[in-house]
Order: sequence, then C-alpha cells, then structure tokens
Amino acid sequence: MNKKIGKQTFFFQEKPVITGRGTVVGQKEGEGPLNKYFDILLKDDMYGEKTWEKAESKMLKEAMFKAMSRADLDKEEVDVMLCGDLINQLMSSSFVARDTHIPYLGLYGACSTMTESLIVGSMLVDGGFANHALAGASSHFCTAERQFRTPVEHGNQRPPSAQWTATAAGAVVISSADNLKEGQKRKPKMVRAESATIGKVIDAGIKDANQMGAAMTPSAVDTLLNHLEETKRTIEYYDLIVTGDLGFIGKDIMIDLLTGAGLNKKLIKKHYDDCGTMLFTKGQDVHSGGSGCGCSASVFCGYLLKQMESGKIKRLLLMSTGALLSTTSPFQGESIPGITHAISLEVE
Amino acid sequence: MNKKIGKQTFFFQEKPVITGRGTVVGQKEGEGPLNKYFDILLKDDMYGEKTWEKAESKMLKEAMFKAMSRADLDKEEVDVMLCGDLINQLMSSSFVARDTHIPYLGLYGACSTMTESLIVGSMLVDGGFANHALAGASSHFCTAERQFRTPVEHGNQRPPSAQWTATAAGAVVISSADNLKEGQKRKPKMVRAESATIGKVIDAGIKDANQMGAAMTPSAVDTLLNHLEETKRTIEYYDLIVTGDLGFIGKDIMIDLLTGAGLNKKLIKKHYDDCGTMLFTKGQDVHSGGSGCGCSASVFCGYLLKQMESGKIKRLLLMSTGALLSTTSPFQGESIPGITHAISLEVE
Repeated sequence: MNKKIGKQTFFFQEKPVITGRGTVVGQKEGEGPLNKYFDILLKDDMYGEKTWEKAESKMLKEAMFKAMSRADLDKEEVDVMLCGDLINQLMSSSFVARDTHIPYLGLYGACSTMTESLIVGSMLVDGGFANHALAGASSHFCTAERQFRTPVEHGNQRPPSAQWTATAAGAVVISSADNLKEGQKRKPKMVRAESATIGKVIDAGIKDANQMGAAMTPSAVDTLLNHLEETKRTIEYYDLIVTGDLGFIGKDIMIDLLTGAGLNKKLIKKHYDDCGTMLFTKGQDVHSGGSGCGCSASVFCGYLLKQMESGKIKRLLLMSTGALLSTTSPFQGESIPGITHAISLEVE
Repeated sequence: MNKKIGKQTFFFQEKPVITGRGTVVGQKEGEGPLNKYFDILLKDDMYGEKTWEKAESKMLKEAMFKAMSRADLDKEEVDVMLCGDLINQLMSSSFVARDTHIPYLGLYGACSTMTESLIVGSMLVDGGFANHALAGASSHFCTAERQFRTPVEHGNQRPPSAQWTATAAGAVVISSADNLKEGQKRKPKMVRAESATIGKVIDAGIKDANQMGAAMTPSAVDTLLNHLEETKRTIEYYDLIVTGDLGFIGKDIMIDLLTGAGLNKKLIKKHYDDCGTMLFTKGQDVHSGGSGCGCSASVFCGYLLKQMESGKIKRLLLMSTGALLSTTSPFQGESIPGITHAISLEVE
C-alpha cells in the first residue's frame, strides 16, 4: 500500500501509539520554566559518572528506562531502539545499546535526531516490522562545547547569538495499536503518529557556529511549507507547530521568512513556537536559547506529550531542526547545512 | 500486518527490488582482485578535491548517481536517501545530501552502515513510505586514519592485526516492485530483499583499535545464529553468507566460533566469506585485510550484486560488521562495542 501523499510526506496507516515517555535534564534545565514536566532533574550534570560523555549516555539510558516503565514494558519486549546524539560516532547511544542489548539502529541528524528517530520508529511499527520501538536522543552542554567549540574550562565569552546546548535526554516508546496491553490503553488520551515529512538538506551559506539558528531556519521553512502543501493544510490545522532549537534569533527569522512566504503573521505567532525558547528563560543567561538534540527531545517527551495526554494540544507538528556542522568541515571552508524533519502527532 | 518472525528478524512482504547499483573505489582497491566489478576506479584518491573528506563525499555522490542512472531514475524521482560514513557528523553523507536535495535520513552503524541503510531503505519501500530509496555508504583510508588513528603523514608502523580502511563507496536504488519502469524490469535477474535481522551491540572487551576483527566477530556470530534460528534456516540455505570487514584474522575467529557453536566447519568454509578478505589480496600489504563502510559497500554493490544478477549467487546473506569505536571513548577506558546487521537477498 502506498502511503505517500507528496514528494517528502507520507501518512501512517495504523497510526502508531506513543505508549511511554521519559526525560532526564541537567541542573540548568531543571531551573527552567518547564521543570515540573521532567522525570529526573540532575543536581550534578556529571550524574555520578567520571566523564561528561558517560553522564550523557546514562541520561539517555535512564530516559529510555523511564519510557519503557511508563509503557509497562520490559526491555526484552522492545523490538528495536533508534537513537542518536551529537558526540562523535554516537558514543552516548552506542553505549546505551550495549547496556540494554536491544536491537539497535543508530541515527544521525544532529539536533533533528529526535524527530528522525520518531519518524523511523513510527515507520517500523506502522510497516509491521516492530511492535514496540524505542526512540530517543540526548545532548550535554559540556560534551558539545568540548567537541564543537572550545573546552568549557577556557571560560570563553559567547556572542549574544550563541545558543546553549541542552543537557537533556528524552525517549518514547512507539507501539502498534493492535498489540496494546491493558495498562497502555488506560492513558487519558492516546497520542498517535499521523504523518511525517522527511527533510532535505538546505545550506544558506552560514559559516558561523554561533549563528546556528540562522543556519537551520531555511531548512525549517522548507520542510514546513512542503508539509503544509503536501498535506493540503494551513498552519491553523495544528494547535502547535514547534521547531527544535532555532532559539530566540532563529524563531524571529522563521516568523519573518514565513510571513515573507505569504503566511499570516498573527496566525504564525499564535500557532508556532520553538523548543529552544521554551526550555529556558532569557534570564538564565543562555543567550539566544536552547539547542542540541536533547532540547526538542526533552521539551517534546516531557512538556508537549503531557499537554497532548491532557488534551490541551490535540494536533502537534514537531519539527526538530539540525545543523549538520562537522568538527572538520568548517576548517575546510564549508558552511553549515541544515535539515529539519517533521512529524504530525494527534490525540483522539 | 505483522512481518516479525522472531525477536530480531522480519521479512519483507513485497520484497523490494534493487534496481540500480554504483561503486567508486580508490587506487589500491582498483588494483585488487575485484577491480573489474567496480564502476569508477580512481587514479588519485584526492579525486580532484582539495581534501580527503571532500574526495570521499564526491565518491559517495558519484556512486549514488551511477546507481540512479542504472535504475533509470532522475534524482527528483528518488523519495529518500539513507547513508552514512565514518567521518564525524557524517560529513561525507551530509554534503552529498546537500548537493542532491533528496530527502535525507542519516544513519550511523560504523562499518555496518551499508547493511543498515539497505535494511531501513527496504523497510521504507516495503512499508509503502517510498517508491525508490537510495542506500549507500563510504569510507576513505586517509580520512579514517586521520580521525581514528594517527595522521597518515606520520608513516606509523601498523601491527599485522591492523586492517586497511577501504577507499570506496557503494550505493543502490531500492524500488517498490509495484512501480517498476520497463527499463528496470529488463535486468537479467531481479535481486530482491527477502528478510533482515537488526543487530544487537555486543562488547567482547577488546580495547585495541588494531584488533577490529576480534572486536566485531562476537556480534557477527550473535546476529548470524539468531538469524538462522529465527528463520529456521541452516547455513546451506544461503549460497553465500558474507560479513563486512572482519578481515583475515576476524574471519578465522568467526569460523572457530561458529564451529564451537556446533556448526559444521566444512559447510561454514563452503558458504561463508568476508568482504575484507575479498577486496584485497594479502600481497597488497593491507595486513589483516580491508575494513570501513566502503569495504562491504563496494564488494556488495560491485561484485556480489553482479554475481546475483547473473544467477551465480541466488541467495545471499549480507552482514556488514561495525565497530562502534568512538574517537573519545578509548581515552575514557572504554572497550570497542561491535554490531552486525544482516539482510537476506535473493534472485527469482
């Protein structure tokens, strides 16, 4: 059966159900406005480990176990785990997969990874290849700074356009609606994957790693406009359209570009937000806002899913945004390509 | 419809068809025993670019265009591209995706990536989410040495157990059997994806980056035994079972471990081989043989698919093997986890 409804967009025939969710966030994220929606709030971002990388891996693992616990599943009942992170060679994810022994598909879409794993996981369940799929993503301020920018110990100054990589992990269990346990059906509202748009890589020529919002926004605009056109929807269709980590500057650019494309500015402002502007307040000294795989992962798996379960959000378009910045490519004169995937979720 | 036939294994209901294949290999690979099966043989591994990374990216791009050309498809007709490589943040793949503008899902399974992309691509087509999916992987000796070991310019000595990262790229087009063009049907034999087994991460505690074969073999044994058990098959079912890059030492360990697990040694030797031992001869000074994503990618997309199209191999189990070695984890005392995915392909 052909589920394609456009060049980049397809629908899920069986509408897989999100049966579990889990989040672990760092200290700064735990002091932010969404703190009551997270499961585990760290007091120390080392999380009892000897390195930041191992701490991040433990965060992802605990978020996954929380999601499985909410879904009333043992790890032996999960068919496949799909996840990724920003650390070279997906160190966080690979070591979680080693510890859990769940069949594993590693994904990399930079900060778009949460939506990428949701899409691939929903395809696996919808296509009949898995009954229960774990999807997740993580990031850690210190692992990202060390790898992509400067050692944290340098205490470098950051320009106002810089964003703050979230120390956060989020995971969900995606289950086939045909095989739900009794405990999984008891949830107040069932959140289901409805359709998805796989993003194209768009490169606006930005070369400044402190301008990630500007680098990613053109791909977010491209994916959103294509999604709306291919599904024949308008932005009012969704209670909320949320990008992953464009931050305060990127969000403004997004609104400007969408307005420029002919969309109504008032409606955009009513229906659109960005996880990077939701996770922290401006007073938390995060400059242009949150970023990292864990930003949209934690805001989605914590706050947004909770809003959907309670019926406050009925239709959500999650659009995690990724900057495909390599640790090598900037030294070779390359600009920063962006990618944005979108998944439409709904409650019945 | 549930396509699962075991914990890790599922079958493809519609059996997606491989309609195109393309390969680009470096100079050393072009001097090896399989050279007549490759499409483009480089005389200079820089491929006219200024950096090794850009050369690798160009190799992957050209392999993909060759695959699309054989499948009689323009890039606008391809729904999605799935690929990965060893360079941090998938630099090769991301920049190909930028240049082609095809919707892109980045994958990372280290040297298991070719099979991972084949599996996910086949699921997308079989599940109705795509009519044509591009799947590929690449590696380059110089980019891998620089990143994982020592700068090539050092001229370091390598122990006999070290493997040679292949400078090679391979790609295929996977198409829905329902939507084949006339030109795609004309192929002598149609190669189709039949079933797949998603691998678990297995860590045997190896910490020596010059012992990759030993680090990956336990995961290859695990995936093969689980695949055979879940499909209720024996090794004789397949004309050839081929691992990705265990190399000469890893291949011997594989045969020993399978024999230890109760399989007949003569049958193993008759039905099993390793791409890392096929791509080069021992006389080419590659120590324990070939490795890298491009090793199984080029041997599969070049030699093995050609053997299937001519009917010499009717049933193939491709098992690309990956060492989830991070550039950071060894410095934190971690061992090298291995992962192996398997996909069963057949001709009618």
